[in-house]
Amino acid sequence: MLKPLSEVIVFAPATVANVACGYDILGLAIDKPGDEITVKLNHSGEITITEIKGDNGKLPLDPKVNSVTVAAQALWDSCKEQFSDQWQDFGAEFIIHKKMPFGSGMGSSAASAVAGAYAANAILGSPLSKREVLPFAMLGEQAADGSYHADNVAPSLFGGISLVRSNQELDIIELPVPKDLWVTVVHPKMEILTKDARDILPADVALSKASKQLGHLGGFITSLYTNDMALMQRSLQDEWIAPHRSKLIPQFAELQQAVMDNGALGFNISGAGPSVFALSKSEQEAQLIADVICAIWSDFNPSPYISPVNTTGAYVLASKS
Amino acid sequence: MLKPLSEVIVFAPATVANVACGYDILGLAIDKPGDEITVKLNHSGEITITEIKGDNGKLPLDPKVNSVTVAAQALWDSCKEQFSDQWQDFGAEFIIHKKMPFGSGMGSSAASAVAGAYAANAILGSPLSKREVLPFAMLGEQAADGSYHADNVAPSLFGGISLVRSNQELDIIELPVPKDLWVTVVHPKMEILTKDARDILPADVALSKASKQLGHLGGFITSLYTNDMALMQRSLQDEWIAPHRSKLIPQFAELQQAVMDNGALGFNISGAGPSVFALSKSEQEAQLIADVICAIWSDFNPSPYISPVNTTGAYVLASKS
Repeated sequence: MLKPLSEVIVFAPATVANVACGYDILGLAIDKPGDEITVKLNHSGEITITEIKGDNGKLPLDPKVNSVTVAAQALWDSCKEQFSDQWQDFGAEFIIHKKMPFGSGMGSSAASAVAGAYAANAILGSPLSKREVLPFAMLGEQAADGSYHADNVAPSLFGGISLVRSNQELDIIELPVPKDLWVTVVHPKMEILTKDARDILPADVALSKASKQLGHLGGFITSLYTNDMALMQRSLQDEWIAPHRSKLIPQFAELQQAVMDNGALGFNISGAGPSVFALSKSEQEAQLIADVICAIWSDFNPSPYISPVNTTGAYVLASKS
Repeated sequence: MLKPLSEVIVFAPATVANVACGYDILGLAIDKPGDEITVKLNHSGEITITEIKGDNGKLPLDPKVNSVTVAAQALWDSCKEQFSDQWQDFGAEFIIHKKMPFGSGMGSSAASAVAGAYAANAILGSPLSKREVLPFAMLGEQAADGSYHADNVAPSLFGGISLVRSNQELDIIELPVPKDLWVTVVHPKMEILTKDARDILPADVALSKASKQLGHLGGFITSLYTNDMALMQRSLQDEWIAPHRSKLIPQFAELQQAVMDNGALGFNISGAGPSVFALSKSEQEAQLIADVICAIWSDFNPSPYISPVNTTGAYVLASKS
């Protein structure tokens, strides 16, 4: 049943995809940065974007192509059908506040798509569950980057650590999150084009190397179910991606050595980069790791982000009935 | 401390490697068939093989090359050093009873290696744990097939479902076994040379396909921890191996269709084949699946084996103090 609100402000967090051992099928959420979206209900029958902040003019104001409103519109089209007896020619205006950088490897487009779909549901009084919101957020992400991938979208929406069993079937598993699992993400002020990050990867991987990676992924998932942090550390390996993509990341080998020397459970590129991430067992370690990375990257005006794995995902910051 | 026995008879079971979604890194044990080995202690200072039954004269009687005694000798060399004060010029004679076919895809050489190492430990009064026996069984397997792989050895020794996080580091994880998880294995009377089974595999796999397989493996492991049999069924997929190796297995597509139509959780080649296996939720289903396979394979004089996942692994059948 629809119980519409007059205004909502929602937040969807940044995410770390791949998580070293799960290329294209693992992602986790962090507390900050993220996208904040304000939605005001009206009865114009239309979804519009009235303002975009923090994007340096890069994002389209056209609601038919902006991933926020593509996701929102798709969800509304579905709700309009499902709740046709209650639909009062609803319209809404969106104010988008990008609170995170583009092309950072922190799932910027996914956070927008999630925030759009989640806000569109929230303003109607949340008739859909988060699971039901997911396919619409996926359409927003697809509008932004052309591919149908849940590895950033799912953790931004649900929080926690998401395993994508299948993108095609949208079969997403929410994995258990050990207590005291901290994440450090550092974003250097440089841009890697997604195209370059993709082009540098080989089309194929040796079957023997592929099989080893299965072992690491299996070890990581087991470590989450058994709270075995030593196993997690042994499993956060990447035989496929970092050997290639790290060439685009300045001082990658030096960063990795320094971070692991300072007690990290694992270190790797966040998504397609250039941000890097580390997992660790305490806030103190996470902070130390951030300091170590920022010192090595002093030429790149780095922005560090520290939080436990965020188990909340998208949420309503404020609302008016 | 050594508390030697005068005679032991041990059994090590057959195993299903790969288990559809975990090429080279997953294996599980079944109740039968397997290898039975009798060891009699003496004080000759030597390990000898006095008889091999059920091998049609194919296995070497030379203890320096037979995988049973290679494993046993390696374990004894280590124990001789560790327990030098108690070592009384021990020797032993081995009687090997192969109760399973060669080149069947059921881990025949692994069962021999495990039985050899396990028997060598048992006759000394079991000074080592199964975990400590593992590296010696691995040496026996390596002697037989030239590679250092634990995907058959580990489940034959420990029982249950084994994940090989790393062969190099011998990092083996014993995964949880859901209640009522039944295995059907059917062996057709034909031989596939391991070399042919390997040569038919491509050297590389597309990165996108490799990544999908990570999702399936992750789903399977999650299903074991959460007892989610529907997830297990969705996850028992093989994007890498069966599309190639199935060309060596007569009527593979027909078998797969019939087995899945009869309620199986999954169906695939057992190890390198030619045996096939299916997982199911009851003895009744497992039997029905065996009947279905045997009917389709009536030209191949098929031998069916049905059991729950065997959680015992290698064990002592009988002993004399």
